[in-house]
Amino acid sequence: MASEPKESPSNNPGLHSSPDEATKGYFMQQTMYRIKDPKVSLDFYSRVLGMSLLKRLDFPEMKFSLYFMGYEDTASAPSNETERIVWTFSQKATIELTHNWGTESDPDFKGYHNGNSEPRGFGHIGITVDDTYKACERFERLGVEFVKKPDDGKMKGLAFIKDPDGYWIEIFDLRRIGTVSTTAA
Amino acid sequence: MASEPKESPSNNPGLHSSPDEATKGYFMQQTMYRIKDPKVSLDFYSRVLGMSLLKRLDFPEMKFSLYFMGYEDTASAPSNETERIVWTFSQKATIELTHNWGTESDPDFKGYHNGNSEPRGFGHIGITVDDTYKACERFERLGVEFVKKPDDGKMKGLAFIKDPDGYWIEIFDLRRIGTVSTTAA
Repeated sequence: MASEPKESPSNNPGLHSSPDEATKGYFMQQTMYRIKDPKVSLDFYSRVLGMSLLKRLDFPEMKFSLYFMGYEDTASAPSNETERIVWTFSQKATIELTHNWGTESDPDFKGYHNGNSEPRGFGHIGITVDDTYKACERFERLGVEFVKKPDDGKMKGLAFIKDPDGYWIEIFDLRRIGTVSTTAA
Repeated sequence: MASEPKESPSNNPGLHSSPDEATKGYFMQQTMYRIKDPKVSLDFYSRVLGMSLLKRLDFPEMKFSLYFMGYEDTASAPSNETERIVWTFSQKATIELTHNWGTESDPDFKGYHNGNSEPRGFGHIGITVDDTYKACERFERLGVEFVKKPDDGKMKGLAFIKDPDGYWIEIFDLRRIGTVSTTAA
């Protein structure tokens, strides 16, 4: 192998290797997508995926609510409203579910677009689990819809499930991901 | 205030408060979207937002590459290929940029859909910065396109910028987010 790793700037035009001092402390806090029905999505993200509701924000004038979901322990969350907002936004890697009021009971609502058919863009979120096969067996028992089961296709040990709105969620574990990726790549 | 916080299951139909033991250790690892040109996106995510390239995976048979970007210090990344993949997938909150080869030079490529016009779905990612105004002044100097500047609209102290493909990125800081949200909510 060359002394320069594949990830070095010399192998990746455009890449800067020394983050600007001005960006110090920045972190990736949220991924937002829209959901049709919070009752169904809250059930899925909490019961099936094990997330907690970190914060709910309601905007009555604009008729929407935000549900911040994540893997943090809410037992440590402040009880004061403003402090809880700050606490939520200080957590990395939350999911922000946006509910525009009324879609859950609107017979004309056509659903949201998951980005994996035209027009494409967003692809999926991904969750690291302890064991892909064990996790997927449980998802099957719970009636979760699959895009790809762990043994489908050539990337064995890696799965894709769908959330209630059809968004894709990749499921993988650290024991298998190295082999899966190097075999395929 | 009632004794039950707004985030309790009694106020949120569908919500389960005790994560299933089976989901222990799960974490939100990645958010994937497609990009037209890695050279342009790598420049933006590294130079403007201060992220590092954690791992690149190339899939020549299927003609695409994945660029995992994040705020981790790559100085601590293993040099071995498989170990570096596992290291990458053990980091929370990475951005996975998917490049389907050829889009960067295809005159017929129409670009990707950011989810904020019909058909809607995905909305944005959000980055916590040290100071929204200071960060946005720098973004302006660097020629970043804004969807909303910090003082536009009624949510002061919160901004939205666009990445090179037009995906929205929310910019906020912990000093202001509590006030912004409680004022608007």
